[in-house]
Order: sequence, then C-alpha cells, then structure tokens
Amino acid sequence: MADAFNQEKPARKFRKKSKVLQPIDDLIEGVRAGNRRDLARAITLIESNSPEHFNHGQELLKKLAPHTGNSIRIGITGVPGAGKSTFIETFGESLCEQGHTVAVLAVDPSSTVTGGSILGDKTRMENLSRNPGAFVRPSPSGGVLGGVHRKTRETMLLCEAAGYDIILVETVGVGQSEVIVRGMVDFFMLLVITGAGDELQGMKKGIMELADLIVVNKADGDNFHAAQKTRREYKGILHFLQPATKGWETQALTCSALRSTGIEEIWNTISLFEKITKDSGVFDERRRSQTKEWLHSMISDRVLNHFFQDPVIKSSFPDIESSVIAGSQTASQAVEKLMNLYKK
Amino acid sequence: MADAFNQEKPARKFRKKSKVLQPIDDLIEGVRAGNRRDLARAITLIESNSPEHFNHGQELLKKLAPHTGNSIRIGITGVPGAGKSTFIETFGESLCEQGHTVAVLAVDPSSTVTGGSILGDKTRMENLSRNPGAFVRPSPSGGVLGGVHRKTRETMLLCEAAGYDIILVETVGVGQSEVIVRGMVDFFMLLVITGAGDELQGMKKGIMELADLIVVNKADGDNFHAAQKTRREYKGILHFLQPATKGWETQALTCSALRSTGIEEIWNTISLFEKITKDSGVFDERRRSQTKEWLHSMISDRVLNHFFQDPVIKSSFPDIESSVIAGSQTASQAVEKLMNLYKK
Repeated sequence: MADAFNQEKPARKFRKKSKVLQPIDDLIEGVRAGNRRDLARAITLIESNSPEHFNHGQELLKKLAPHTGNSIRIGITGVPGAGKSTFIETFGESLCEQGHTVAVLAVDPSSTVTGGSILGDKTRMENLSRNPGAFVRPSPSGGVLGGVHRKTRETMLLCEAAGYDIILVETVGVGQSEVIVRGMVDFFMLLVITGAGDELQGMKKGIMELADLIVVNKADGDNFHAAQKTRREYKGILHFLQPATKGWETQALTCSALRSTGIEEIWNTISLFEKITKDSGVFDERRRSQTKEWLHSMISDRVLNHFFQDPVIKSSFPDIESSVIAGSQTASQAVEKLMNLYKK
Repeated sequence: MADAFNQEKPARKFRKKSKVLQPIDDLIEGVRAGNRRDLARAITLIESNSPEHFNHGQELLKKLAPHTGNSIRIGITGVPGAGKSTFIETFGESLCEQGHTVAVLAVDPSSTVTGGSILGDKTRMENLSRNPGAFVRPSPSGGVLGGVHRKTRETMLLCEAAGYDIILVETVGVGQSEVIVRGMVDFFMLLVITGAGDELQGMKKGIMELADLIVVNKADGDNFHAAQKTRREYKGILHFLQPATKGWETQALTCSALRSTGIEEIWNTISLFEKITKDSGVFDERRRSQTKEWLHSMISDRVLNHFFQDPVIKSSFPDIESSVIAGSQTASQAVEKLMNLYKK
C-alpha cells in the first residue's frame, strides 16, 4: 500500500543512447538467437525509467510476447543464512548439466532503498554466471517495490523469449517480496535450515503457506540427522496448513547445496508438480490469473499514485489524516472531502 | 481488490423520514444516555446509503467522537460448527453478570450477496439480546464488503459512545473478513473444535497468525480429553508462528460454551492482554495505525471505484484486459493507455 504513495524516481540518463536504442528488429533477432549482450540491452531498456527507453522496451516486449511463457518459473526464498545463493548456484549448475538453460533473477526490496541488490555482489554465483547455459541478472535497483516487480516480471518474459527454459526468481524475506514473487512464478520454494524450532519463530507470517516445497538445506556432516528431524517437523506443520497449489500437497525435502546432495530429488519434485498441474489445468489457470492480478495491481498503483501526487491532495492530505486520528472529523467525512478536492 | 470494482448499491428509501431524522442533539443525548432505541436509530443513519442520512450520521459520529474508544474491542472468528453463537451468548452473559455492558456486532461478507446476515436469525442469541446489559446488532446487509466494514466500524464507535465497555465483533471465515475484523479490534480470538488435525487442514491461510488467543470449544463430556490434546497441538504449532501482537505470546485455552466452563479464564487472558499492551504502548499504537490504515483503505476503495466507474474506462477495460492476457499488448502499455483515457 505504501508503495502507491511514492513516485518512481527518475532514472539516471543514459550516456550512450545510440548503443541502447539500436533498431528494434535487430534487438529482437539478437534476443531470439540467445545473444546475451542483446538480452542484457533489452533488459536495460525495460529497466529504464526514461519515457523513450520505456516505450522502446514495451514495443520490444510486445513483439516478443508470442515467444514467452515456455519456461517453468520457480521462486526461491529462504531465511537469512539458509544458503540461498549457494543453493541457486548448485541447483542452476546441475540443471545446466542436464541440458537446461537457466535464468536467475531477483526481487530485492532493499535495492529500492540502497540502490544495491542481493545479486549485485560480483563474487556471488561466480561459477554459475560463467556457465554458458546460465544467465544471472541482479535485482533492478532504485525506485519503489512496484517498479522492481514490473521490471523483474518483464525481464522474465525477455529471458523466456531468449530461450531460457527454467527461470529462478530469488527473493529475500523482506516486506511483501515473497507475495510478489509467488504472484509471478509457477512453483515456490522455501529454503530453511535446521534450528529446532527456535529460529523458526522469526519466520514471516504465512510464508510456509506460499510454498509448494520446503527444503531443509545443509543436511550434511554432523547436521545430517538434525536436518532430517527438521524436515519431519515441517511436514507435521504443513499438515495443518492449506497447500499453496490446488491438487498438490506441499512437500518437505532435505539437501546439501555444498555437497550437491538431494538436488536431483528437488528437480524431480518440481517436474512432477509441473506434470500434475499442467494435466489438471491448474498451471495455465494460475498463469492467466497472475497476468490479470498483475494488471490490476499495476492499475491500482498508478491510479492511487495519480491521486496522491495530485498537488491539492498532496498539500491537504497530512492535515486531513491528522484530524481523523484526532477525531475532529470522521474517516468518511475526510474521504468525501478528499474526493471533492480531487474531482476539481 | 474486487470490492473496489463494484459500486455500493443504493439503499432502499426510508418511508418514515421524520422518525429517523430527528434533531441531532436529541439523538446525541439519547445515545449518550444509553437509550437503546436512539442507538438503533443512530446506527440506521450510519448504515443508510442515502446522502441525506449519510451526512446526518457522519455529523452525529463526529460529535460523538470524544466519547468513543473507551472499550476493549474483541474480534471472534471460528471454523464452521465451532459454536460461535453459543460461545458469544455464554461469554456475553458472563460479562454482563460481572457488571460489564456488551455490544455484539458482526461482519458478514455473505450479507453483501444474500442481503441476510449471520446475526439476522432472530432465534440466535435470544437470551443475550434480552439482557439489559447487552446490545446485539446483526451485520449490515447489502452493498460491498467495504461498505459492511465501514458500517460495522462506525457502529462500534456509536456503541462506545453509548457506554458499552466491551465490543464483540463476530465474523465468519469468508473472503477477507477476518483480516478486516483484525484491523478493527484490539484482541482477536479464534474458536476451534477438536478434530485431530484433519478438520484443520481446511483452515484458512494465515488465520492462526491473526489470533491472540485460540480457544478449543466443546471441551466437555467425552470430548474433554480430546480437547485438551487439541489445545496442546495448537500450542505446538503456535510455537512456529509469529505472534499477532508485539509482546504477547498467543495463548491456547479450552472451554465449553454449553457448560459455561473455561469462560472466566478467557476473560482473564483478555484482561491480562489489555494490561500488558496498554503498559507497553502497543494498544494505543495499534489503534492509531488501525485508524490510519482504515482511512487509507477507504481512500483506495473510493479512488479505484472512481476510476473503474469512469464511463470510458468501464467500456474499454474488458477489451484491454483480454488483450493483455492474449499477449497482444503488454500490461505496461495497457496501463498507459488506460491512464491516458482516464485523464481526458
């Protein structure tokens, strides 16, 4: 909600316009041919907040639309210290070895504040980044979470048009980021570690109920048996919760990203999920409703932003809000007053 | 979200205007004196969708504002068959016996569809209704959930101005109703029954994490020990979830509304909660942020309604939405187009 009250910050101006604004048909051809530099340029357009780049990027996206959608979209989140980047590196490399192509994206709300991003650290996922079958893109930075959301979603479509058949969307457990990522993926995975309950108390509300799979990482060495126990505890809790996906019982597995064990079983579980939900129609139904919900949330953001950025509303809102909290006018009266100001 | 896309239906015209639109000062005096007929009339004004009644009602509410807020607001929800109305009757009567005055309200989203309401059935809470210390009001019917929300919240304020020191807000587990009720109460209680886990699977996502107290009802006769076991199971799950209120560990108790056992312990728990959260400042902080959030959600509803009821938007939206789902334009392009139409 708060995001709607902030305006997207203008992007820095590009210095080398000619390089970015290359003819759209060339760029389309390059993306479709899997040229990584062209894909990166296309993403840069999508991420730009300048109107010229924006329109160019949207035109590109529209023309590439027929080639999108042919991947399995996997969201990955985890408690701090669960080893998300090691997991993604091991998992991604294993998928590449099997002949898949993997794009790794991120939604990082903290990037909206710091301008940095969870994948921004160059030393992370170094091996995967160098793998010819993989494409690793850091979270777009700057702007509001709604902007990061749009950019990641559109980048995902570009990666699909470039032929990547598995998209991994990483997120950190901050704010609404898991809900946003759950809203753009087919399968959602929660990475946890063992800790006998106490560490789990800090787990975000409702996050287990977003997951199609919970993976207890670091199931190796002395920790092997404890991880198995944690897995059983999660399985027990899951019994009391509604599953995230119709017709699919949320699973709990263990793995060691460090030792590369349990990775194959995770992929088999995702493949089974894909088969079951595609057969039942749940897969396609979710994608359609995700597109609809996304459109509606973009509209909400824009319409509310238009309202709260209105100069008259902007100048009168703080006083009106205070008066409602103080009780000197009712909320209903305040809303009437604001709407009358807005319509003028 | 969907609520914002529907307009509030106009209310039936009142036939006996003179009776409802009595002088506002008389009505204020009557409400303040605890005259139940005047309180009912004031609520009728609040619930009316006619502009004349609405303005009158809001003026009343504004003048009564200094006398509101002096109650403990308790939300109660429960799985179907948990015995909510028997519980509220037993609990309410016990509170009245102790010298409290109790107002029972309801948020029933189904009333927006059927025009009926959970408390509409006259035979329900018959004893409590007749108790001079209690005031039972059915859920407002008709209109969208946002309307039911506003009316219940404003009715709560009127009941406080009339001197009721305990407000019970009942809700059924449909749609967003628990989240709405959680957003208007100080303390939220989930009523459940025993069922060895299997019945709990159908429990709504995240509902346990809204609760400050889970009560296992029907802890009587042959069911006594099973209820204790269920209570322990819930306590075990709660250990893994984030508590709903800062500085308060969500409790799990048992009771029998039928045999009137365990009722006192529930009230003691609520009193302890009130003391702890008032001392820590969490109580007042929650009320302030609830008022703010309510204002913001009312604004969102109105602003989005203004957008979607715009004749041009209304006629062009379905085609634009379909084209986005079909991929013939991007979501971003669709939003731009709609905003341009709207601004004209």
